[in-house]
Amino acid sequence: MANQYHARIYVTLRPSVLDPAGTAVASGLKQLGYQGVEDVRIGKYIELNLTATDEAQAKVQLDQMCDRLLANPVIENYRFELTQLATV
Amino acid sequence: MANQYHARIYVTLRPSVLDPAGTAVASGLKQLGYQGVEDVRIGKYIELNLTATDEAQAKVQLDQMCDRLLANPVIENYRFELTQLATV
Repeated sequence: MANQYHARIYVTLRPSVLDPAGTAVASGLKQLGYQGVEDVRIGKYIELNLTATDEAQAKVQLDQMCDRLLANPVIENYRFELTQLATV
Repeated sequence: MANQYHARIYVTLRPSVLDPAGTAVASGLKQLGYQGVEDVRIGKYIELNLTATDEAQAKVQLDQMCDRLLANPVIENYRFELTQLATV
């Protein structure tokens, strides 16, 4: 028996890593008149469904997926949220 | 008197819009051995700080920023979360 899970994964640049895209967006927002905007950081937001025997196995799989493909552990952090969808 | 807020903005493709990057990631994950992965969708995750007189004004500003720069309303949806940081 397996369970289906929905995962929301947030990949962000480590705080020590410069974010040129974020700086560009901050300057764009200021040019549009939003003077109070600061510290813009741009990351990735990934949603996926996965099948696993239980929540612990789903978390192990997601950690591996993030380390191997979804994030670059040298410059990025990640975190995820898991919700169970159905038992199949 | 103004308040400083921290905003977390999630920009996702509308469900009806094809996501080639998501499809590529799904196929990459399957090739790495994660057969149970499906429906990968890739979006943007933006963090920023902004100054506003109150939460209502912060929300109005964020809605405008998303519509004008951060998201493409034709093909993307967005949502955001707001936390108050400090009164300055």
